[in-house]
Amino acid sequence: MEADMKNLKYGMVGGSFDSYIGDIHRQAARMDNLAELKAGNFSRNLEKSRKTAEIWGVEPDRVYGSWSEMAEKEALREDGIDFVSIVTPNDSHYEIAKCFLEHGIPVICDKPVTSHSRQAEELLKISQDKSLPFAVTYGYTGYPIIRQAREMIEAGTIGELLYVRVRHAEDWVISSVDPESKEELPWRFHPEKVGAALCMGDIGTHAEQLLEQFTGLHIHRLLAMLGTWPKRVLPLETNGTVLLDLGDGIQGELWASQIAIGKTCSPGIFVIGSKGSLEWTHETPSILRYTPLNAPTQLLEAGRSYTSEDSQSLCRVSAAHNEGFLEAFGNIYRNFCEDLLAKKYHIPGKRLPYPTIRDGYRGMKFIEACVESSKKGNVWINLE
Amino acid sequence: MEADMKNLKYGMVGGSFDSYIGDIHRQAARMDNLAELKAGNFSRNLEKSRKTAEIWGVEPDRVYGSWSEMAEKEALREDGIDFVSIVTPNDSHYEIAKCFLEHGIPVICDKPVTSHSRQAEELLKISQDKSLPFAVTYGYTGYPIIRQAREMIEAGTIGELLYVRVRHAEDWVISSVDPESKEELPWRFHPEKVGAALCMGDIGTHAEQLLEQFTGLHIHRLLAMLGTWPKRVLPLETNGTVLLDLGDGIQGELWASQIAIGKTCSPGIFVIGSKGSLEWTHETPSILRYTPLNAPTQLLEAGRSYTSEDSQSLCRVSAAHNEGFLEAFGNIYRNFCEDLLAKKYHIPGKRLPYPTIRDGYRGMKFIEACVESSKKGNVWINLE
Amino acid sequence: MEADMKNLKYGMVGGSFDSYIGDIHRQAARMDNLAELKAGNFSRNLEKSRKTAEIWGVEPDRVYGSWSEMAEKEALREDGIDFVSIVTPNDSHYEIAKCFLEHGIPVICDKPVTSHSRQAEELLKISQDKSLPFAVTYGYTGYPIIRQAREMIEAGTIGELLYVRVRHAEDWVISSVDPESKEELPWRFHPEKVGAALCMGDIGTHAEQLLEQFTGLHIHRLLAMLGTWPKRVLPLETNGTVLLDLGDGIQGELWASQIAIGKTCSPGIFVIGSKGSLEWTHETPSILRYTPLNAPTQLLEAGRSYTSEDSQSLCRVSAAHNEGFLEAFGNIYRNFCEDLLAKKYHIPGKRLPYPTIRDGYRGMKFIEACVESSKKGNVWINLE
Amino acid sequence: MEADMKNLKYGMVGGSFDSYIGDIHRQAARMDNLAELKAGNFSRNLEKSRKTAEIWGVEPDRVYGSWSEMAEKEALREDGIDFVSIVTPNDSHYEIAKCFLEHGIPVICDKPVTSHSRQAEELLKISQDKSLPFAVTYGYTGYPIIRQAREMIEAGTIGELLYVRVRHAEDWVISSVDPESKEELPWRFHPEKVGAALCMGDIGTHAEQLLEQFTGLHIHRLLAMLGTWPKRVLPLETNGTVLLDLGDGIQGELWASQIAIGKTCSPGIFVIGSKGSLEWTHETPSILRYTPLNAPTQLLEAGRSYTSEDSQSLCRVSAAHNEGFLEAFGNIYRNFCEDLLAKKYHIPGKRLPYPTIRDGYRGMKFIEACVESSKKGNVWINLE
Repeated sequence: MEADMKNLKYGMVGGSFDSYIGDIHRQAARMDNLAELKAGNFSRNLEKSRKTAEIWGVEPDRVYGSWSEMAEKEALREDGIDFVSIVTPNDSHYEIAKCFLEHGIPVICDKPVTSHSRQAEELLKISQDKSLPFAVTYGYTGYPIIRQAREMIEAGTIGELLYVRVRHAEDWVISSVDPESKEELPWRFHPEKVGAALCMGDIGTHAEQLLEQFTGLHIHRLLAMLGTWPKRVLPLETNGTVLLDLGDGIQGELWASQIAIGKTCSPGIFVIGSKGSLEWTHETPSILRYTPLNAPTQLLEAGRSYTSEDSQSLCRVSAAHNEGFLEAFGNIYRNFCEDLLAKKYHIPGKRLPYPTIRDGYRGMKFIEACVESSKKGNVWINLE
Repeated sequence: MEADMKNLKYGMVGGSFDSYIGDIHRQAARMDNLAELKAGNFSRNLEKSRKTAEIWGVEPDRVYGSWSEMAEKEALREDGIDFVSIVTPNDSHYEIAKCFLEHGIPVICDKPVTSHSRQAEELLKISQDKSLPFAVTYGYTGYPIIRQAREMIEAGTIGELLYVRVRHAEDWVISSVDPESKEELPWRFHPEKVGAALCMGDIGTHAEQLLEQFTGLHIHRLLAMLGTWPKRVLPLETNGTVLLDLGDGIQGELWASQIAIGKTCSPGIFVIGSKGSLEWTHETPSILRYTPLNAPTQLLEAGRSYTSEDSQSLCRVSAAHNEGFLEAFGNIYRNFCEDLLAKKYHIPGKRLPYPTIRDGYRGMKFIEACVESSKKGNVWINLE
Repeated sequence: MEADMKNLKYGMVGGSFDSYIGDIHRQAARMDNLAELKAGNFSRNLEKSRKTAEIWGVEPDRVYGSWSEMAEKEALREDGIDFVSIVTPNDSHYEIAKCFLEHGIPVICDKPVTSHSRQAEELLKISQDKSLPFAVTYGYTGYPIIRQAREMIEAGTIGELLYVRVRHAEDWVISSVDPESKEELPWRFHPEKVGAALCMGDIGTHAEQLLEQFTGLHIHRLLAMLGTWPKRVLPLETNGTVLLDLGDGIQGELWASQIAIGKTCSPGIFVIGSKGSLEWTHETPSILRYTPLNAPTQLLEAGRSYTSEDSQSLCRVSAAHNEGFLEAFGNIYRNFCEDLLAKKYHIPGKRLPYPTIRDGYRGMKFIEACVESSKKGNVWINLE
Repeated sequence: MEADMKNLKYGMVGGSFDSYIGDIHRQAARMDNLAELKAGNFSRNLEKSRKTAEIWGVEPDRVYGSWSEMAEKEALREDGIDFVSIVTPNDSHYEIAKCFLEHGIPVICDKPVTSHSRQAEELLKISQDKSLPFAVTYGYTGYPIIRQAREMIEAGTIGELLYVRVRHAEDWVISSVDPESKEELPWRFHPEKVGAALCMGDIGTHAEQLLEQFTGLHIHRLLAMLGTWPKRVLPLETNGTVLLDLGDGIQGELWASQIAIGKTCSPGIFVIGSKGSLEWTHETPSILRYTPLNAPTQLLEAGRSYTSEDSQSLCRVSAAHNEGFLEAFGNIYRNFCEDLLAKKYHIPGKRLPYPTIRDGYRGMKFIEACVESSKKGNVWINLE
């Protein structure tokens, strides 16, 4: 790490000291010393916002009472923030991101990036028009071995792609919702807050993005079957099975479940090509299973010398020392920051990719198509 | 094993000494000394038939030139066969089975049991009318731990069933078909011989049966997406993804693939209930993963004292000494033979179940529904 | 399988119909139709012996009242047995085997082959002097992938051998002995019946043999630490850790345990060479883990086309259809029978190896060395 | 995290920006915002030291030309450091640590803590006399599920302990040393720099510490067999097998290897008790395998509600989101910092333990005993 590289300043909207996701983003952001937290509107509660600033060493005069004030004032400062990190609830992402973009400030935002695809489309357009980088933190895609997989696929190692299975399964809803409860549900289960198809917005979109980053394929059409459990209580779908048309005759299936008892946090993907297959599962996030046609399965391990340079560059500890979700998340920040730094200092050369507002937009289209397909009785819906 | 129990005699149609499946059946049949091979029409080639008889100790006068002759003559003998095992290619099952049933001889037959569901339906009717047991050798369902799973589900251990994923994946087709070959394909790839949807007839029906035996559920409706690879060469579908409606709002997904590089022989199932989940995979066929809601996953091992009596009774070696496909197959024969013996000797009491012609019939309906759904553009097809 | 090959006849001593091990041997013996059970002294109880004969189709006139009578009479018959299978308790093996050898009859015998190494040495000498094959049924070594491993090692695939770890762990003793019980222990725990170091005689010798068959190495010296649990009850060691000197500077470790809760039946081996390593474990008996230096680990699967011809020849069902302990045991019988057939019919060519009385002898030396080392305070004991 | 808790300041000796271990410690130290890097003597090269300071935001006036100067000056400052982190090569730890202790500054130091046990003993004595906390960063012991294991053992969940197997295996040496090379070896292989028994100092001591933290047991006596590969090149042992006497008749085995091809970084432990067993392996660092006697194996997952409060408190991301080596390392820092904070602010109550200089001292005794035992021909050596 070069000393003179450490010069990005960022602000954050949301992420009060007592929130979970705020710390994840802050840990991720500083993991490579590429960005320092310098401003914030961490909470609507100014007291909380100030306390967060104190913990994280943000100067009091850069703690703002509103995100619009922050966008305005930071844009005017000589030493203003180089980007903003948005970690508020989903339904506020759009307005906030739009405001910062309009003030010329690049954005990194949690997923799902907006409440509707047309909002995401608008953000995409603004970021393109203004050439402002916009990252969306699909954290699972940051694992180094996923880069390895993508490079192998691009190099033709497994031949022509034929079929893909991808999933994100967890047990969060079924573990925490009492099916007999008569009490008010927390806001996370209110359709007006989170949209329909909780399973798709929360985690299906992770699976969809994993599919895209791992393989480079896009979903052309889909046919979704959604289900709700526990039925008597929840107003939202918590399990969905989706048939995929990935173009060129490539078929696939996507499963997103929040009732998958026994699968605490289990994104995963299996890709069949004409010359081999690749398989990855979050339970062993540094291992890529590669089976060449008619040959033994190989277990590729992140960080080893036989993996690609780019993949190795995403590792922070020695091979097999285990890197987890924080480090994967950190790689989204790293690649985003290096892109910003390259732009700021006119550094030429290739940068590693990260999920952008274009991916965020496709994610929204995916969620909406699932809901539409399910409502119409499980019919094919075009995404493009 | 009681000495006086050893008194079933059986004949075989097909299964020449140089065939693979014949030996599997013969090994399975004698594994518990419940049945002795006493007659056969092992091949159209009489020489081969005689040689097979010699190897397996069948008296020359009970080697027949045709299966119809065998059915007729054995039915007349005082010491005639107690059942016939049919291991010929699929498209001849129907005629042969019908003939033996009509001569009053119970049948055990390889799967898929016929070429069309109406043939299976007819066989079902005859076997019912004549009260003749008719087994279909869905071998994977014979693993002892699958009985354990079924009993746990019936006892309500995982609560109300919510969602099921089941599969059979192998790489047989993609490993053995040269996508560039100009030569004539072997008969196994001729649609007129094996019907459409090779993946469903060959192995999808194993997955469907695994679902039924494991959970006790039936498929009410399905929506299938089939695919063919290698496209330039094969006239038959080799990969299929199927959405399932299992009644009472229970959804599911079934995947059958013969192009699954990296999965040599991988049937498997995952069942989510309101209070827990169960998972089984053929790679570790003696292990059942059971996860109670909000508790650690448990690994139940076939043969251990904490498994059910019925499940233990299906084990032949000490726990963890590994029992494989032959032993599982042997359990289909065992349960079928014990049913026949109970009938023959009027022994009262419960017998362990085995897949019957009713299951074989449902399997045919399943295959046909997959083909129809796919042809009609992936629409729901009722099975019942 | 050639029809005219089916011509070995064998007898059995021990293995009454109500014994466990008798059936294992009989199943194994007939698995390839190479040998037919024709004579027996299955029990001291003649009634039981006759009942066993009836079940297994042995003619009444070849059921003998004693093994010495059987040896004598069978040796005189024109159609006398080609070999005898000895499955009595350990302490009677020596006398019985000696008697049959002296009557010119080859032997296949359960392990440990005798009670003392000098008995085994004597049997070895007789079998050599008379050129009589003598197999010892170390069943685990019959798994096809173990042959694959041995061939890879012999071909230098993992280079010069450096270090080996081998084990057999099970929980049998700790699961079945009540540490508070005041009752008489079953005979299996009486030192005078089974010798000292139960863990070594019962299962350590399996690990020792696995080491030899897998690697081709022999133990030159060892240093053993034995332990007894539950201490208050058992008069015998049930857990042992052994340092190994395997010659040429190769070191190793062997662990045998009958108190290994969580390891129901877990033989396993890990071999490090200068260019790679090999690992096998009984939990997935068809998989060989091969890691070349600085390259991904490969999972070799028994029966696949990339494994050796000899290894493939030991498989009976398609790859990944799971073959278990019975089939592995059957391979010991198969290789032994093919050796006998080659001798009988003067068929030239290489035969696949099987564990012989020489291995049985080394096994006894191993057990005795463990006991001696432990008694002397954990010092090195030479085996050769 | 409470805002007013963020008030420890620390300095570092060693850990220039271009070193690997420095960043690991700095990441670990700031993971919970409990400590801020405020001073440093990062390198003998002042230029490098300054550059490191710049990257990490250390004020120029607190970059020191020597560690002794740093100890002296920081001890005098009102706002001096609350502890020092020592990440220099092993042979300098002693002097540096002693100096800081003498200036009243608590120490956290990499392992092995010194070059000789008597140095460690001296440090132990000083730290006791002055009541100065002294942590040693055995990183693997920081995984949350290891705390869970320890609490289960202390609660008697697996009964009386009977036998333990522990290891640390990696392939670092064999992957990087060319056995044919004639060139000078890097300093890591010079006995005068690192002491004898590289495998024990480097990683065996990790295994020893894992044993102690996981079980609470100590090694009373040991008997070691060491080996060197590649023999022609290396002057140091790279593989060791150690028999353990853990007191009260508890036996064990420890294996440390740097030639374990196929095991990139594989610490692990298996503990048998009279009522159950526990198993942990670094490949899946959040999973604890617990097998109660005669019951199914359970897979306990870090962070789930059924694990202990203390264990859960060590998790930073949701269960199954994967936490790796950095987070485990961070837990050593966290527990050390919370101990310091409790002392500084007189906060009562229990704190979570961390490896201390007492453990570091025992680690040195362990290494020396291994070397002595091996030199004397594999005899028992007392540690206490």
